[in-house]
Amino acid sequence: MLLDNINSPKDLKKLTIPQLSRLAEEIRTFLIENLAKTGGHLAPNLGVVELTLALHYLFNSPTDKLIWDVGHQAYVHKMLTGRRDQFPTLRQYKGLCGFPKMAESPHDVWETGHSSTSLSGAMGMACARDLKGEKNHVVAVIGDGALTGGMAFEALNHIGHEKKNVIVVLNDNEMSIAPNVGALHNYLGKLRTDSSYRWAKDEMEHLLKSIPAVGGKLAQLAERVKDSMKYLLVSGILFEELGFTYIGPIDGHNLDLLLETLKTAANTKGPVLVHAITKKGKGYAPAEADSVTWHGVGTYKIESGESASKSAATYTSVFADTMIELAREENRLVAVTPAMPAGSGLLKFAQVFPKRMFDVGIAEQHAATFCAGLALQGLKPVYAVYSTFLQRAYDQLIHDIARQKANVIFAVDRAGLVGADGETHQGVYDIAFMRAIPNMVIMAPKDENELRHMMKTAAVYDEGPISYRYPRLNVRGVKMDEEMHALPIGKAEIVQEGKNVAILSFGHIFEIAEQAVAQLGRDGIAPMLVNARFCKPLDEDLLRRLGNEGYDIITVEEGCAMGGFGSAVQEFYAAEGYHDMNVTIMGVPDYFVEHGTVKEQRQEIGLTAEAIVSRVRSLIPLHKQRA
Amino acid sequence: MLLDNINSPKDLKKLTIPQLSRLAEEIRTFLIENLAKTGGHLAPNLGVVELTLALHYLFNSPTDKLIWDVGHQAYVHKMLTGRRDQFPTLRQYKGLCGFPKMAESPHDVWETGHSSTSLSGAMGMACARDLKGEKNHVVAVIGDGALTGGMAFEALNHIGHEKKNVIVVLNDNEMSIAPNVGALHNYLGKLRTDSSYRWAKDEMEHLLKSIPAVGGKLAQLAERVKDSMKYLLVSGILFEELGFTYIGPIDGHNLDLLLETLKTAANTKGPVLVHAITKKGKGYAPAEADSVTWHGVGTYKIESGESASKSAATYTSVFADTMIELAREENRLVAVTPAMPAGSGLLKFAQVFPKRMFDVGIAEQHAATFCAGLALQGLKPVYAVYSTFLQRAYDQLIHDIARQKANVIFAVDRAGLVGADGETHQGVYDIAFMRAIPNMVIMAPKDENELRHMMKTAAVYDEGPISYRYPRLNVRGVKMDEEMHALPIGKAEIVQEGKNVAILSFGHIFEIAEQAVAQLGRDGIAPMLVNARFCKPLDEDLLRRLGNEGYDIITVEEGCAMGGFGSAVQEFYAAEGYHDMNVTIMGVPDYFVEHGTVKEQRQEIGLTAEAIVSRVRSLIPLHKQRA
Repeated sequence: MLLDNINSPKDLKKLTIPQLSRLAEEIRTFLIENLAKTGGHLAPNLGVVELTLALHYLFNSPTDKLIWDVGHQAYVHKMLTGRRDQFPTLRQYKGLCGFPKMAESPHDVWETGHSSTSLSGAMGMACARDLKGEKNHVVAVIGDGALTGGMAFEALNHIGHEKKNVIVVLNDNEMSIAPNVGALHNYLGKLRTDSSYRWAKDEMEHLLKSIPAVGGKLAQLAERVKDSMKYLLVSGILFEELGFTYIGPIDGHNLDLLLETLKTAANTKGPVLVHAITKKGKGYAPAEADSVTWHGVGTYKIESGESASKSAATYTSVFADTMIELAREENRLVAVTPAMPAGSGLLKFAQVFPKRMFDVGIAEQHAATFCAGLALQGLKPVYAVYSTFLQRAYDQLIHDIARQKANVIFAVDRAGLVGADGETHQGVYDIAFMRAIPNMVIMAPKDENELRHMMKTAAVYDEGPISYRYPRLNVRGVKMDEEMHALPIGKAEIVQEGKNVAILSFGHIFEIAEQAVAQLGRDGIAPMLVNARFCKPLDEDLLRRLGNEGYDIITVEEGCAMGGFGSAVQEFYAAEGYHDMNVTIMGVPDYFVEHGTVKEQRQEIGLTAEAIVSRVRSLIPLHKQRA
Repeated sequence: MLLDNINSPKDLKKLTIPQLSRLAEEIRTFLIENLAKTGGHLAPNLGVVELTLALHYLFNSPTDKLIWDVGHQAYVHKMLTGRRDQFPTLRQYKGLCGFPKMAESPHDVWETGHSSTSLSGAMGMACARDLKGEKNHVVAVIGDGALTGGMAFEALNHIGHEKKNVIVVLNDNEMSIAPNVGALHNYLGKLRTDSSYRWAKDEMEHLLKSIPAVGGKLAQLAERVKDSMKYLLVSGILFEELGFTYIGPIDGHNLDLLLETLKTAANTKGPVLVHAITKKGKGYAPAEADSVTWHGVGTYKIESGESASKSAATYTSVFADTMIELAREENRLVAVTPAMPAGSGLLKFAQVFPKRMFDVGIAEQHAATFCAGLALQGLKPVYAVYSTFLQRAYDQLIHDIARQKANVIFAVDRAGLVGADGETHQGVYDIAFMRAIPNMVIMAPKDENELRHMMKTAAVYDEGPISYRYPRLNVRGVKMDEEMHALPIGKAEIVQEGKNVAILSFGHIFEIAEQAVAQLGRDGIAPMLVNARFCKPLDEDLLRRLGNEGYDIITVEEGCAMGGFGSAVQEFYAAEGYHDMNVTIMGVPDYFVEHGTVKEQRQEIGLTAEAIVSRVRSLIPLHKQRA
């Protein structure tokens, strides 16, 4: 095996091109075999095998900076930079991260997870290089989907203007995680397919040469026409207009062509965009046939491509089914997703209500403000978005939605700890960042049954923005009510009366609070158990009662402890003049929690039933003392 | 005067075109005369007089939706929709808002203040219209500067793809608030100036006709060439490629042409972009000559154009001067601004260090991540950004900067209440939204002297992101230290020892805390006065001391009370087991504070020396009781 001897990019450079081709096949086999056991982003990585090889063959990482947009396609890069042995631990607790990670290797010079950041990072590195008088290359690899993100355009605009030496490799697989949408996508499609452009180029050059040399305006015209032909026929007008030299499109699986083209790019002054066409899932038939499913997978059987992971109902699937049900009742309800029709579960909705579904591409900011426009004209848009991506629309939430009191419903998916995707994707800030915004209503259901009631609550609420957050978890399997009903705004649910201590749980983390209460109950300790339901507005009547009756409070949430639900409870007591309250906040501590299972992550940060039990027990002496 | 009889767009429609022209002149005179007394956004509004007249003449607002990007150019629109009488109260407390405001008029269908949101709003309204089966037009007016904002591109991409009937009027004055930068700007410049494009069009058509009709490839080629000429010669290739019909560029001060072009646009199926060239400050010589200065002004003398407002040193000017000083000491220091070189004070810096200054255009997201790239390659970028615009870069702050522990310095200008710009621009969320992010250091100086020390502190700090916030206010006039020195991270300053009550002030709001303590002192009441300096990390030693010594705490900040500095103090006491602390949080309450002077705004929300005095007094009986 050639692969056995590749422990750094240096080893790669000794190979011949035919050997590189063999290596590509070995890498594919390695990925297919290893990911069958661990799961991971198979299809994106199969798509960039030759591209990654070409980049490491030609450039000198880490002196030359290789930047991977989104980063889920960096597995091949990890294999070539000494981390092959760690693949059995991929995306596991304390194992190999699924994204570039500086702590793992000096070859990871830029960490990603979210989309569309690579060009900004590359431009920063290029400007730093030039100021320091250094000479390295900076290469960003970005997918066609990521290119629709506004910040990628902002960066193109800046790079093109400053004419910096930056190489952008457009890894065009006609696909981000879902099929791409947007005018830019259509444009790329034209570049990919319109061979007549290229044919016309040759013919036109011939024609132009045959125009007799004449003076004056016609000569000027001929020059102008040549220029215009250049504009037209190099095809990449849009990028050229933005100041880039455009090269392509080329077959991103042809190593010779890749090497030749990248060499040209490396020798070109100013910014270059290399347009490489690749196939997601290349070399593994099931993934080639269905790259959406094979974008990110659990374990699978190699021969059949069957999933080896059990699939169970998730909060997301409950959301998806309920959306359809609600939309039948409420004509004004429409759904908006920033390029996550599958991930959000809304594909189903789109099948039933195609006209009421808007996939706006990777464009979280636009999605939010687009919702404001829909809402101000009387519709009820549901913005289905992962908690971690909602961070991208924070100003839009404040300035366009909350300030205008637009009736936008936020379905905040992947809220809380997200497991294997790790620190870039943790959905732990939404409670804190939404809570500071006036006019927001913030809900979180204790289980999948309550999620449905909250969706109903949001659907009938007409006083401004309202949100509900739910996790990337399987459902708990609770009994489902047949009818949905709207919950009273700002009212908590007392699940179990009790004494001395009240546990206030906000959201799906309720499951550990319930377990804790069950454990304590076996020892005859009976704290009150409250399902808070609302973080904003708070159930002030209940909080007053707890304050007046001398309860100690433990708040539990799967969100950052700083500024979150527990903080809101404390603020309330302080503002109301309860100065002897004992409030314990249990949430996510002040650091970035790495990948692992949600269970491992909860264990690490002490967000467990045992921790609640222990906290309640520690309060007993205090109560005895008072009594 | 024609203007006297224009109380709604209906009155406008009775006029002839020559009358409209006269009206345009009357409007200009009105604006120049009124704004001389109130100040306001003069130049942008002088630039859109004809455009606004044409829009209201042709379309039927509010059935047809007119959307003003940024909104500071909506004065003419306000004049034409029944609000002329309110101009003497422009931007004053309880007076006419400087931006579109739904509460003021049914003709204001979309509120703005921040840039680049109009296209998303328009697209939302167009989709709602189509779903409801209605027929109105949706027209968004956006400047060439605002078009560089990523979310505007996201919206173009969506609109172009869906082929919705949306009219985008590009109000191209080669200028946002500052001269524009970016490749898009260069592109627009080419469209504006290259008359040879248009000349070539005629010539080329002539030439094409002269090519003899032949079969086969050459005929195909001729067709192709015609197509390509269309691409080239309509000039707006970039917009055409994104799915828009491009019309222009036209003279945006020519009423006949505007009306004709907008009529064409209204009758075109699918999205249209009308490219209108306007002149900022048109019709008032001083503003035409210097549209940067005249973008937003205080009161002025009409004849001379001299400012009638006193200009004083501001926190911003101290920042600007100190940046230059620090950059001389520290080679790694560079400055980044998202299109605010003047507003941020960095123009001066750019003159001294042109290569170390990056104006990236209206692109807050890119600016932040660009900083991360600079920092990871060893530079120390200072991201100078208004608090309200930093909201746009929230995910970048978390994902690209804090997570990667990039040494980015945030100079958060216009923090706190901002006065006349009002609710869209209040800088009151930054403390809360930054505090939730791991690895952040958050500072705020009590005065302009301390601002300099904090800038020094940030310049020598090498452990990750660090921020300091300062207000849109004149300096206090305190004594300035000659030497700057770095402050110890996480250490507060006890300004005055005292007893029973400790006032913990964070940031420039210190001035009212100091006044309160002075007032109380006259009555023999001496609380401790603390200048917190750091919100993160907190001065835990001091907080423990205050807790142990039985102080009641009053926290004061000019930021949202929810989740801010006071909340941090409470969280600390709860986490450390101080359960009988009396913490009062004084900050900005949970609603959007409208325009007025900062003093009026503070009065309205009870953030005054008197309120602190009153709070301290109310605590005295409590202490007597305890003692």
